[in-house]
Amino acid sequence: MMSEASETVSEDLSAARDRIAAAYEPRLLEEAGHRLAGLLASHLARAERSENAVLPWTEPPEAVRQAAALLRDSPARGEGVPDGFARLVTGMLDRGLNLHDPRYLGHQVPASVPLAGLFDAVGSVTNQVMAIYEMGPWATAVELAMIQELGTTIGWAPGAFAGSVTHGGSLANLTGLLTARNVALHDGWDRGLSGGGATPVLLAHAEAHYSVARAAGILGLGSRQTLRVGLDSRGRMDPRRLDEELTRVRAQGRPVVAVVACACATPTGAFDPLDDIAEVCRRHEVWLHVDAAHGGAALLSDRHRHLLSGLEKADSVVWDAHKMLFVPGLCAFVLYREKEHGFDAFRQDAPYLFDPAAPGLAEYDSGVRTLECTKRAAAFGLWGVWSLFGRQLFADMVDVTFALGRAFYDKLEEADDFAALHEPQCNILVFRYVPAELREAPAERLGDFQLELRRRLIESGEFYIVPSKYEGVGALRVTIINPLTTPTHLDQLMDALRRHGRESLNG
Amino acid sequence: MMSEASETVSEDLSAARDRIAAAYEPRLLEEAGHRLAGLLASHLARAERSENAVLPWTEPPEAVRQAAALLRDSPARGEGVPDGFARLVTGMLDRGLNLHDPRYLGHQVPASVPLAGLFDAVGSVTNQVMAIYEMGPWATAVELAMIQELGTTIGWAPGAFAGSVTHGGSLANLTGLLTARNVALHDGWDRGLSGGGATPVLLAHAEAHYSVARAAGILGLGSRQTLRVGLDSRGRMDPRRLDEELTRVRAQGRPVVAVVACACATPTGAFDPLDDIAEVCRRHEVWLHVDAAHGGAALLSDRHRHLLSGLEKADSVVWDAHKMLFVPGLCAFVLYREKEHGFDAFRQDAPYLFDPAAPGLAEYDSGVRTLECTKRAAAFGLWGVWSLFGRQLFADMVDVTFALGRAFYDKLEEADDFAALHEPQCNILVFRYVPAELREAPAERLGDFQLELRRRLIESGEFYIVPSKYEGVGALRVTIINPLTTPTHLDQLMDALRRHGRESLNG
Repeated sequence: MMSEASETVSEDLSAARDRIAAAYEPRLLEEAGHRLAGLLASHLARAERSENAVLPWTEPPEAVRQAAALLRDSPARGEGVPDGFARLVTGMLDRGLNLHDPRYLGHQVPASVPLAGLFDAVGSVTNQVMAIYEMGPWATAVELAMIQELGTTIGWAPGAFAGSVTHGGSLANLTGLLTARNVALHDGWDRGLSGGGATPVLLAHAEAHYSVARAAGILGLGSRQTLRVGLDSRGRMDPRRLDEELTRVRAQGRPVVAVVACACATPTGAFDPLDDIAEVCRRHEVWLHVDAAHGGAALLSDRHRHLLSGLEKADSVVWDAHKMLFVPGLCAFVLYREKEHGFDAFRQDAPYLFDPAAPGLAEYDSGVRTLECTKRAAAFGLWGVWSLFGRQLFADMVDVTFALGRAFYDKLEEADDFAALHEPQCNILVFRYVPAELREAPAERLGDFQLELRRRLIESGEFYIVPSKYEGVGALRVTIINPLTTPTHLDQLMDALRRHGRESLNG
Repeated sequence: MMSEASETVSEDLSAARDRIAAAYEPRLLEEAGHRLAGLLASHLARAERSENAVLPWTEPPEAVRQAAALLRDSPARGEGVPDGFARLVTGMLDRGLNLHDPRYLGHQVPASVPLAGLFDAVGSVTNQVMAIYEMGPWATAVELAMIQELGTTIGWAPGAFAGSVTHGGSLANLTGLLTARNVALHDGWDRGLSGGGATPVLLAHAEAHYSVARAAGILGLGSRQTLRVGLDSRGRMDPRRLDEELTRVRAQGRPVVAVVACACATPTGAFDPLDDIAEVCRRHEVWLHVDAAHGGAALLSDRHRHLLSGLEKADSVVWDAHKMLFVPGLCAFVLYREKEHGFDAFRQDAPYLFDPAAPGLAEYDSGVRTLECTKRAAAFGLWGVWSLFGRQLFADMVDVTFALGRAFYDKLEEADDFAALHEPQCNILVFRYVPAELREAPAERLGDFQLELRRRLIESGEFYIVPSKYEGVGALRVTIINPLTTPTHLDQLMDALRRHGRESLNG
């Protein structure tokens, strides 16, 4: 049956085919999978017991040199493939940041539920992707089921809203604001933004995440056209000032693309008063985009749901599952209150994505709604954990980590040598270590000291916390986003800061 | 040592803490990991032996209903967590597309090397992300090592170029074109594109991927401002016509953001003549962006490297590892010939990403170079497979799949009832089944028949191929991107099309 040409090809390439078959051998996958299970579990156990450094510090050029060397020495080794696999995995585990160590108190990236990563691995090994329904039928079903679950949790009626998943909060903000731009500037998508007319503008919480101004830069609006709305004493957008700004901008005849509120804002975790802000936006007929990347999860907690009152009035909402829903990065939801806006981000004919032989399927083709076109099955981890443990686990993780934020604040307030810089509204807290010697120091000296202290601390491997600024002066910041952290770890953090602080002052 | 307040908190939440500890138990991860290894391996074995449907077809609303139901019934079951995990994973495997079935001949998404998914799982379970070096030190090292490897493979000198990894070819094209826009329109990032002046323009291969016009829409340039440069008889951008278009556009005083060439173009896999195109761009002093998402991998093959001659002259290059480097989605490289352009996409101060206490580290912070800000460790799969099997495996996979493209063409040419619509330049081929009854049919009837035939075929679960258009008329398309496919499978595909075609004509 084979043609002569293809038989010749087969012969030429038989060695290549053998090498490929060996790499795709199911028994190899099985053996490597078992080795991986053992390595991951023992690594997790050591991390949870704080047996290793939180951050195994290596200077970046040295780390790159090591990665490049490993990339090139495979043929030189005589080991079998499973042994080589285990050696490489061990090296990866030894050199990564240990987020599951309860002394990790870092960026808004969680110690994720370990099994979430295994659910994601089902998608990775079988390479389930989305764009059109056929390519990832179950990935699509899972994503749409999660969108329904989160949208109804916001308070929207089933079937009335839309959404999609994208690779992170920054892309989610970009998607939501692109939709708002397309709605506000009708022919901007096709024709472009150049040409006459008043310059469009975004209004945002003065300390909105940098991805908002960045989105304005990407979208051709201009990063400088993001006007910053002033905050109240607790770091929340002031609805009165928003009203004034909108009135002023409207009087100038400038089109308003959107108002961006935060729930919560990155620097101190402040939740904007969404009910009042939504009312101002309604009066001015402006699109309200809420960046609830971090705080959206509070909706799942009976104790903290009130922080998001009014979220249901937003036109678009960003909610990162890879923050306070404790799944690995990246899995960010963009949700639209009105279903028809789900298709407004990309006003484009992509004929080969639609199958004229089955036109009803287009609604299930994610490629028309996301920046990625082809997209990995990013919601498997969230769906799996939710299906396995139920929504109670998410409520628990919000309650525990938010309570730790409060507990840490109380400890700092009780101590003479620490200063909490705000009351926490969630699990984010900005503070300083202020030993007696520095109590009278100039602000800049005190701020620089915090940053030096932090670098000493993280390079020691004892704790991981992040640098910040408060009122322009250097500070320390924690996000308590490992639910295995306890109040005792927070005491130890304070002690470690005192110890490193003394060394820094003496050295 | 604990304050009273935090002790109260601890007591209130002790049940929550217990539930969390159970979910984070290392022994649970170990047991689930072993179950996963077995399930994945037996699924892979069945897929490679074609024991299941390639696509287990379910109508989308029914699939969403199933996913939503599973999401909600966990508390009702009495099973243990490992059993629940295995049940959910089995359901995921049963409902996904089986790309490892050699009868999968679908979109430009590969039957990935299975172990690549396990390397990715190391990142998912331990939640390694990037943005700043500290958060994903090894993820950063691996990404930079891969960038060095791919850039030198293009022919650039070590250290002279730059790059980053993003979530897919569409975002990679968006990133490269954003860089080109920022270089061409100096104050566009800050000030925005509105205001006077001639409308900027992109010039692209007439059949460039739809993400190019989409990028123009997103970036505020306007999707309609993408001018399509005509092709030669083999579907390649014609350098002479490019020269004419550039001369015409320049005469109008319109700023040219970039020329977009393809290596290869999506529809038929045509490789543009990059040497000649680069020479035209050099003369007109225009940024050359090459979408080598699919074809970049040919650089690794001695037989096919010539297709990319001239790629080294491009200003920016997109190369998707999740296409012809056979790793799972998504892992796309954007590479810049000149190192300084690596920072031009995002002209932004993001002060809290930079640590003034260690300014030298900023070069290793990926967040300043990618759309995502926080980004998953997307290069682990590629780095792992490359380190384990060496670069020969990638050359093998290119050679085998490209040869199959040629073999399929030969088979179609030999058959009376099939028409290949172009000679293949790689592993992409567009064709039609033309039974005797339809030889004289109007083009539209013949085209519609192809699309109906394909839908029948894929819903039968026997093969997976995709719909296309050729000269405006419906057609069939394969990308031979499972290296386990053999010439025999291609014979079987032709037989299956004949059988379903007859049924369609008779029914």
